[in-house]
Amino acid sequence: MENFSFKNDTDIRFGTGRIESELHDAVAQFGDKVLLVYGGHSIKKSGLYDQVKNVLSDLKIVELPGVEPNPKIASVREGQKLAQENDVDVVLAVGGGSVIDASKVIASAKFYQGDPWDLVVNANGADRMKLDQLPVVDILTLSATGTEMNFGSVISNPETHQKFGTGGPHTPAISFLDPKLTYTVSKWQTAAGSMDIFSHLIEQYFNRTENNDVSRGMIEGLMRSVLKWAPVALDEPSNYDARANLMWTATMALNGIVRSGNKGGWTVHSLEHELSAYYDITHGVGLGILTPRWMKFALKDSSTTALFARFGRQVFDIQEADDQKAAEAAIQATYNWISKLGFPMTLPEVDIKDETNFDAMAASAVKTGSLDKVAYVTIRVDDAKEIYRESMKNGDF
Amino acid sequence: MENFSFKNDTDIRFGTGRIESELHDAVAQFGDKVLLVYGGHSIKKSGLYDQVKNVLSDLKIVELPGVEPNPKIASVREGQKLAQENDVDVVLAVGGGSVIDASKVIASAKFYQGDPWDLVVNANGADRMKLDQLPVVDILTLSATGTEMNFGSVISNPETHQKFGTGGPHTPAISFLDPKLTYTVSKWQTAAGSMDIFSHLIEQYFNRTENNDVSRGMIEGLMRSVLKWAPVALDEPSNYDARANLMWTATMALNGIVRSGNKGGWTVHSLEHELSAYYDITHGVGLGILTPRWMKFALKDSSTTALFARFGRQVFDIQEADDQKAAEAAIQATYNWISKLGFPMTLPEVDIKDETNFDAMAASAVKTGSLDKVAYVTIRVDDAKEIYRESMKNGDF
Repeated sequence: MENFSFKNDTDIRFGTGRIESELHDAVAQFGDKVLLVYGGHSIKKSGLYDQVKNVLSDLKIVELPGVEPNPKIASVREGQKLAQENDVDVVLAVGGGSVIDASKVIASAKFYQGDPWDLVVNANGADRMKLDQLPVVDILTLSATGTEMNFGSVISNPETHQKFGTGGPHTPAISFLDPKLTYTVSKWQTAAGSMDIFSHLIEQYFNRTENNDVSRGMIEGLMRSVLKWAPVALDEPSNYDARANLMWTATMALNGIVRSGNKGGWTVHSLEHELSAYYDITHGVGLGILTPRWMKFALKDSSTTALFARFGRQVFDIQEADDQKAAEAAIQATYNWISKLGFPMTLPEVDIKDETNFDAMAASAVKTGSLDKVAYVTIRVDDAKEIYRESMKNGDF
Repeated sequence: MENFSFKNDTDIRFGTGRIESELHDAVAQFGDKVLLVYGGHSIKKSGLYDQVKNVLSDLKIVELPGVEPNPKIASVREGQKLAQENDVDVVLAVGGGSVIDASKVIASAKFYQGDPWDLVVNANGADRMKLDQLPVVDILTLSATGTEMNFGSVISNPETHQKFGTGGPHTPAISFLDPKLTYTVSKWQTAAGSMDIFSHLIEQYFNRTENNDVSRGMIEGLMRSVLKWAPVALDEPSNYDARANLMWTATMALNGIVRSGNKGGWTVHSLEHELSAYYDITHGVGLGILTPRWMKFALKDSSTTALFARFGRQVFDIQEADDQKAAEAAIQATYNWISKLGFPMTLPEVDIKDETNFDAMAASAVKTGSLDKVAYVTIRVDDAKEIYRESMKNGDF
């Protein structure tokens, strides 16, 4: 096991009925000037917007609506301006990963006098880790990214065609996780979020550390949870147990616990970010197409066989004594589960019809993710291209 | 899944070589007057005591040695006196669960003017949750109780024959977890600590909440970790992976994560505390004797069959389609694993030769643990007696 440090002080309020009774004090303890950040109309349609405004009616609320999926730096800039002009005390994020991601960067940007894009790319001497950060309280409405209990955000800059991750000094102060708020999430978004959760777990499971059974054992349990409950949530959108298991699994998948003691970087997310960047497809759909192809590529390296076999036995209950066969069955089972989410399973089905951009995408993915240096299985540019190409075909799954 | 709140801000520093480079600043950030709490001679023999004193040579250190297993209120009283007289800024606990447990209560007692036993039993208007608490930094030397990342302590009062749990407002501020510091832990203590870890997981796994697969899945992984690595640590005391997996499993088993969303109280710990209180046997040994007998008792209630079967399949890899048979095999496997730790497996082997105290013990266990109200399977006084009686016999394991 590798040396590691772990500290995460987010205050989780999980369950139903807590916004009415606890939100006011959770926010007001930090002050009475609140920046309320949200996305589109869904929280108005669901009544959540009105509920929040009622509960906080004695506080001064400044609003930043319109944060989009793949949150843009323009929203952060607007949030910075509002936070500074109104000298807000706390940011209240109501929405999914994008709204919370943007809110975390705005919380830093309040204390920065330049362009907040500097904070994302560490330009012009900007360093979020040395800046103060406003407390962020969030109400999560989508189970997927885990941002509700971690330090990270991903922000896009359409002007420069860049999309980068950035980490701040603090996780959200308080996160309200009410599974009922995800009852109205569409099938498509439920499936994409579930794939995102599963992918986070895969990225951390397949790492270069041997003998970290604490991490691997917990990940196997979390994987079984998402595999079991995502299909239930798709069939029965208002099944509380399904929504609750998905929500807490998403948080646990990316709050730092299950990566503790591991080494090695992520692979499929780097490959997918290029797909999203070039073709603007849904992140979870891109992950679903690429994951089984990456697994097939990785299994060509025989040093991975035992771990893929373990994955198959522990996660998919594959009863097969031979490691190679168990590993192959695990990849097949992964493919089958993803396809049952209702996703397109090849690139042409998401309108990526030719290989025009594969050279540039492969080069960028390898560079951005250091895939030739830290990935579980080394990925060079030609390897990345091969994975993209295999994703064009139906394959022999 | 039940509603729950989770917040735990302990700063974990896991791995080797970190005391030399990080301990000084970890302690000195809180001030220069340190109460150093430890147990017997083992940390002097191992060189850890000298290392700590060297690293902190520029700070003012007041020492409280001699904290015993099952820490006594007398140590807490002495610590309170030293903390107040010297106006210390921080408590540094170097040792196992007992040393850290005592240190956490001392950290509260510094701010209380009465007898600290009041803080343990909430007498005379004392309330630890409303008191300030000194930061506790600890260096853990035994993998077992999980106190290094939770709010609890267990303190004994030999004058009143009482042993109670108490919770404070803060977990330890910083915990140094160096697996190498456990290389010198004896086989007996390694086995007892491993049994304690396994029991913490069992107590939380068998709870009244259906469909919390996040908790159950993570617990299954943690169980597999302790089942696998405890025997390795017994055979090879200096096996780093074995010590590291046990250490981090112990912390994860009782830092609040895996109980999140569950309901229901613990059973076997309540039954065991009576054994320890009446006969002063090692806690882990008592747990080892009682656990399979409690399981047999619980399985008589057919509502438990499916969960015991799941436990057998996921944790012991039992391949058996029939739930009842899988459940019985799981209990047998539990018994076998415990007996391989080298423990006595009946009460007469630990010099409990007759049933003299069983009435009083059973009544006390049921009352203290509310076993007739909140246990996974309801335990009344007669049931508790039956479990003690079954523990007298070799049984048909």
